[in-house]
Amino acid sequence: MKSTEIEKDVNSVLEHLRENIEEIDRQVVSLLGKRQTVVDKVVDLKKAHNLPVYHPAREEYLISNRRSQSREMGLNPDFIEEIFRSVIRQSRIKQSRDFSRKGVRPGAVVLIVGGHGEMGGYFLRYFRDSGYEVRVMGRHDWEKVEQLCEGLDLAILSVPIDKTPWAAQKLGAHLPKDCVLTDLTSLKLKPLNAMLEAHEGPVIGLHPLFGPTPANMDKQIVVMTPGRDELSCQWLVDQFAAWGAIIVRATAEEHDDIMGIVQTLRHFATFAFGQFLARRRVDIRRTLEFSSPIYRLELGMVGRLFAQDESLYSEIIFASPERRELLKDYLKSLNDNLEMIENGDKELFKKEFKKIAEWFGPFSEQAMRESSFMITKLIERF
Amino acid sequence: MKSTEIEKDVNSVLEHLRENIEEIDRQVVSLLGKRQTVVDKVVDLKKAHNLPVYHPAREEYLISNRRSQSREMGLNPDFIEEIFRSVIRQSRIKQSRDFSRKGVRPGAVVLIVGGHGEMGGYFLRYFRDSGYEVRVMGRHDWEKVEQLCEGLDLAILSVPIDKTPWAAQKLGAHLPKDCVLTDLTSLKLKPLNAMLEAHEGPVIGLHPLFGPTPANMDKQIVVMTPGRDELSCQWLVDQFAAWGAIIVRATAEEHDDIMGIVQTLRHFATFAFGQFLARRRVDIRRTLEFSSPIYRLELGMVGRLFAQDESLYSEIIFASPERRELLKDYLKSLNDNLEMIENGDKELFKKEFKKIAEWFGPFSEQAMRESSFMITKLIERF
Repeated sequence: MKSTEIEKDVNSVLEHLRENIEEIDRQVVSLLGKRQTVVDKVVDLKKAHNLPVYHPAREEYLISNRRSQSREMGLNPDFIEEIFRSVIRQSRIKQSRDFSRKGVRPGAVVLIVGGHGEMGGYFLRYFRDSGYEVRVMGRHDWEKVEQLCEGLDLAILSVPIDKTPWAAQKLGAHLPKDCVLTDLTSLKLKPLNAMLEAHEGPVIGLHPLFGPTPANMDKQIVVMTPGRDELSCQWLVDQFAAWGAIIVRATAEEHDDIMGIVQTLRHFATFAFGQFLARRRVDIRRTLEFSSPIYRLELGMVGRLFAQDESLYSEIIFASPERRELLKDYLKSLNDNLEMIENGDKELFKKEFKKIAEWFGPFSEQAMRESSFMITKLIERF
Repeated sequence: MKSTEIEKDVNSVLEHLRENIEEIDRQVVSLLGKRQTVVDKVVDLKKAHNLPVYHPAREEYLISNRRSQSREMGLNPDFIEEIFRSVIRQSRIKQSRDFSRKGVRPGAVVLIVGGHGEMGGYFLRYFRDSGYEVRVMGRHDWEKVEQLCEGLDLAILSVPIDKTPWAAQKLGAHLPKDCVLTDLTSLKLKPLNAMLEAHEGPVIGLHPLFGPTPANMDKQIVVMTPGRDELSCQWLVDQFAAWGAIIVRATAEEHDDIMGIVQTLRHFATFAFGQFLARRRVDIRRTLEFSSPIYRLELGMVGRLFAQDESLYSEIIFASPERRELLKDYLKSLNDNLEMIENGDKELFKKEFKKIAEWFGPFSEQAMRESSFMITKLIERF
């Protein structure tokens, strides 16, 4: 065969292969179209029955399944994950578009105690924008309490943790019997009990796990701890869901336990790390030049803490005697390593490490995957 | 129908719809697998006939077709474009993998002591792919040392920290006078001195700040600590730069100081945090449900540590007496907080916090910005 003939031949094979690819791509898009139709049905059904639309756990499950399928097929699982993250994000965008600021019970009368504060003011705007009649009670408005409570459907306590039981008690006597009473503090057991004691009607504790800054509540977490007459409180929970928040349900005890870990312990550990760097006068900028993206990220977390308000952290860390006990336990656990360090006992370290790794189990694999994703993003950026 | 029956009914319809979605997703992945097979054929054919593999024009054409198909189907064309950009990028990565490994001094003879290990094997592939003649010396090859060192241009010690001085000494006597001697350990002072003592020619210490995993060295950091005759070592430094690494220059002392903070202290703090979570048997998955993205990220860092090799960390943490002193200081600094915790002394905490924040200074602002970027990425993803 002459070389031009070979070329012709190659080109026609290539053309054929390209048509194959084109046909496959057409089928992919057609499947994604079908998928959207099914997702729309799911959303309609959920809305009709007031079920939460968004399900993080199910999404992770979906991703895991596709990852293992791609491994079997010799495809890069990260690539397939990227594809399905896009698919999921797209269907989520479509779902939440018509929610944004819809009022679940527009016209209802809401009182925010502490509504001049940052957090109170944040929610005040949300309620107003969603068509509620919102009243605000500041520090000096207690004499008008009777008037402010008239015809009230919802009372929100947005005052510091240590003032919450007091405010509940003071307000309780004036609330209409079917008014919902709630608070927004980061401890739940004591405030919830105080509210239950002060008010006979529906009571629910809320803890928004975010400060008064995000531009919207999309995917922000709100923990809700039922107190009394959950059914009458449901509209309030629905309202937060309609604003895009993810609602996590827990008992007040469980909430306080977990927050000890998620907030107190974590913030204290970060504080102590920063404290040590400061005491040793470590040259932060020079260490950053020597740093893998992951150290950069970790040090960023420390720096971030100290860019914020010290009162916020002192409240979280010293919120209760239980939390102080937790921190003492943590120090004790750390000190248990002293002998190992003094002896430079690598074997003991490895034994302990393996035991902990076993306990972390599959979470480690997930953590590796998630943080690798973050690191890639960091490298792309810097 | 009773409400529980309706609920049951809704759930079974939902289950059915979810199965539909699952089946569609499975088909999508299966199509992408088929697509990869066809693309592989195209690439093989092109390579065999020396045709350019990458075809921007064809890619744009492909994207346009899929966009118009998605419009017809009521799908968002930007979303479909995003999907196919990922698909194209993936097949391009696969195609270019074997190209990007240019050699600075191809043909030079390289010996990797410990080349059967993970890190040694990692660099072995790089040197081979870049056209070097690479020899490997394993644990049992010391009798062949003379033969392996003949005509050598570069000797790399890729053995555990505590074996490095010994290996340097044993190798030194056999190295040609102008051969470059280097090591890859995470401590530099002792290994560098051992190499300088063992070998009269060019010596340089290297510390790649990454494990043997990244698909490429792009933007990964390598610290280099000059030993002797820097000019003769330059081609090796250039080679790492050509592979995409960022080279940071430091004295061995400075390197070891900073690594104490960046590695020892940080890893120990992370270890101790995980240890405490394990001892308390904290329900990790449940805490994640209660978590802001930033906690998820931080806990991810802890989980990530325990997904890795315990020997690596025991070597880093117990590398030298200075590092053990550092950790003892850290425990001492932590314990200084005990009284404050016991007394619940918020005022003292706030005072200390402000002092540290002041010391962190502008870095805090930078950390806030960078970590906010990360958090946005995290929220987008999950």
